[in-house]
Amino acid sequence: MTAADRRLPHITEGRAAALADGDPAPPEAPAPTAPPARTLADPDTPFAVVDVHRVRRNIARLARHAERLGVTLRPHVKTAKSLDAAALLHPGTPGPVTVSTLAEAEAFADGGHTDITYAVGIDPHKLPRVVALRRRGVTLRVLLDSAGQARAVAEAAREAGIALPAQVEIDCDGHRGGLRPDAPELAGIGRVLHDAGCLDGVLTHAGESYFAHTPEERRLAAERERDAAVAAAGRLRAAGLPVPVVSVGSTPTAHAAEDLTGVSELRAGNYVFFDLVMAGLGVCELDDLALSVVVTVIGHRPEYGWIITDGGWMAMSRDRGTSAQPQDQGYGLVAGLDGRLVPGLVMTAASQEHGTLTARDGAPLPDLPIGTRLRVLPNHACATAAQHRGYHVVDGSRPAGPAPGIQAVWNRVTGW
Amino acid sequence: MTAADRRLPHITEGRAAALADGDPAPPEAPAPTAPPARTLADPDTPFAVVDVHRVRRNIARLARHAERLGVTLRPHVKTAKSLDAAALLHPGTPGPVTVSTLAEAEAFADGGHTDITYAVGIDPHKLPRVVALRRRGVTLRVLLDSAGQARAVAEAAREAGIALPAQVEIDCDGHRGGLRPDAPELAGIGRVLHDAGCLDGVLTHAGESYFAHTPEERRLAAERERDAAVAAAGRLRAAGLPVPVVSVGSTPTAHAAEDLTGVSELRAGNYVFFDLVMAGLGVCELDDLALSVVVTVIGHRPEYGWIITDGGWMAMSRDRGTSAQPQDQGYGLVAGLDGRLVPGLVMTAASQEHGTLTARDGAPLPDLPIGTRLRVLPNHACATAAQHRGYHVVDGSRPAGPAPGIQAVWNRVTGW
Repeated sequence: MTAADRRLPHITEGRAAALADGDPAPPEAPAPTAPPARTLADPDTPFAVVDVHRVRRNIARLARHAERLGVTLRPHVKTAKSLDAAALLHPGTPGPVTVSTLAEAEAFADGGHTDITYAVGIDPHKLPRVVALRRRGVTLRVLLDSAGQARAVAEAAREAGIALPAQVEIDCDGHRGGLRPDAPELAGIGRVLHDAGCLDGVLTHAGESYFAHTPEERRLAAERERDAAVAAAGRLRAAGLPVPVVSVGSTPTAHAAEDLTGVSELRAGNYVFFDLVMAGLGVCELDDLALSVVVTVIGHRPEYGWIITDGGWMAMSRDRGTSAQPQDQGYGLVAGLDGRLVPGLVMTAASQEHGTLTARDGAPLPDLPIGTRLRVLPNHACATAAQHRGYHVVDGSRPAGPAPGIQAVWNRVTGW
Repeated sequence: MTAADRRLPHITEGRAAALADGDPAPPEAPAPTAPPARTLADPDTPFAVVDVHRVRRNIARLARHAERLGVTLRPHVKTAKSLDAAALLHPGTPGPVTVSTLAEAEAFADGGHTDITYAVGIDPHKLPRVVALRRRGVTLRVLLDSAGQARAVAEAAREAGIALPAQVEIDCDGHRGGLRPDAPELAGIGRVLHDAGCLDGVLTHAGESYFAHTPEERRLAAERERDAAVAAAGRLRAAGLPVPVVSVGSTPTAHAAEDLTGVSELRAGNYVFFDLVMAGLGVCELDDLALSVVVTVIGHRPEYGWIITDGGWMAMSRDRGTSAQPQDQGYGLVAGLDGRLVPGLVMTAASQEHGTLTARDGAPLPDLPIGTRLRVLPNHACATAAQHRGYHVVDGSRPAGPAPGIQAVWNRVTGW
């Protein structure tokens, strides 16, 4: 089954779209009877929209930067979780990717990807699926940071009679998992993997860079990320162990890195869509944000200064990532259907299927009658995208009237 | 297509389950080759679990209370979004339900439900789907709080030649949408609906009761909810307009109400699963919580006091509802696979596919090796359930070893 087979040509109007869900679509599925949606004025709200022009621009920017730095770019597909979006990353042929779930790995393998890093510490219970992907010819690289996991991987590899490439997770900033570069157990873990033909490299992620508010802080975070990975690789090599892959990355550090000497590959995921958290940090501009959610005005409470929409947390997620930033953006900034921001209008509250918009900084509450459609820019693209089964795709570079035309529908991978 | 047809008999082991997604499953789908999962130790994590024994107990408790109060119970199915769970609400025959999306309405109509209230203010753009459901014989009741919406409903009803039952949303506590009971436009809106044969009643929801921390506060919230709905109905009746339905409800007020004179029906949704927010309010006990997420330990950071799991916000949602309560429960409390709480262990941080567990109140960090499975009880059942495509069902009343047996898999409705 190819990526094209998995993709439905369009959504049926006015219904939850029949988007593939990690499960193959039946070849016998009846053709939808409703005509395809034509513009953002057509599908019932709420629904997710991606501006492919911005996606292309965001992808090109980091690709140029990685090329200048002399490293392979291995994008993390956990944000869009879409083969269609990934097709823009490596034009022509499926390139290396990072995934956050085995469901993504399996879907991307189905889509022709053969070089995949699963960047969450491996649960030994999941190794049968790792072996199955390897047997399909996929170079699936797993991650670990303990001797127990290393032994489980080595044992599974020996039982299956196939190498299972594994990378040792390195902690560069105390963010989450990983071994410190100077951890005493590092060489022993490397040895267990190497003896089973599984030692593939080291990997680190500067998760704390999401709180680095200046270019200088991000540049330093990128240096620490590089230094941690290179130091760990050096210790393994000093123990006589080959380390082919030295992998670093996060969206903030990937854009800030100036020198990646010793690093072989760079990872970043969020940058394909970007979001208000990244704009708040200064990693991107507001007009780089490629993901939004179309909602409809369904009520007014002028006595409270509220406009009520049909887009609540089910459509936006509960993510309030900007609440810790100098400028709290509530649940999102509000734009018109043409993508232009409505000055001062913020989505400040959410229940399951209701959003509340309010004006701030003395901005007047705009006159938006019942039925008006708006686009809400999210705090956190990964979390908002996860609330949807796919994206309606528009091209912001094309001249559009009040409602941009829908160029395509992209499916998302869901589940684990 | 019946509800049974829409449901797959089991999940395939170790893969994202092929759960129906609001779209019909193909009759030609190949039979899964892997054996069905047998216990909570089998499916790959993370996945959602429902204890059907607790669900039955929660359902019975409120059903008894509604019977004592002399009102019809119209459960809100937005939490479980599952025909299988709803089958426990009205044993034998599909009963009245409340839904939060038209996708739910359509799925529940497919499952045989004929009395459905869509309790989000109607977007006129969605009226064609409302008409389509009415033509299928479903009594679909819509909600509105403006003259513009009333005119749109009346016009759609006249064009379709079919009554579209509509309820006027009443605001009882300044929580969200609705007209105040004394709003001057109430009778005019009622008149527009009545003249088109569409006036069905009034509906209110005490959303602020989610912040009512004592039984007395909740009792008073229930009185205000009742009084607002009854007053609005009285004003419409005084204008010569019949008001068949007077609908009130929220999980906290539904359980606290002592006298619903003048009310015809009671709504509540969250109570089927309950969650830490409801337990924190005192609406339920911790051992009433029916939903949890099974996760696996994938790492340790003893230097920080962290246990890392493979269940992050993708599995739990970003909901931090208890952060505003006296006892903040982080992203959730942690239990063993048998459902018994691990004393003092809390999920305190989340990234997309990682959870961080820490001990509080001086509790020792338990020794939980890599591969240990745990169940995390969520802040907000509606939000956590929404991150999953279905539920593995266990029965907590049956004697179980360390890993309870899986009795069934329930699907969820997704999308809009």
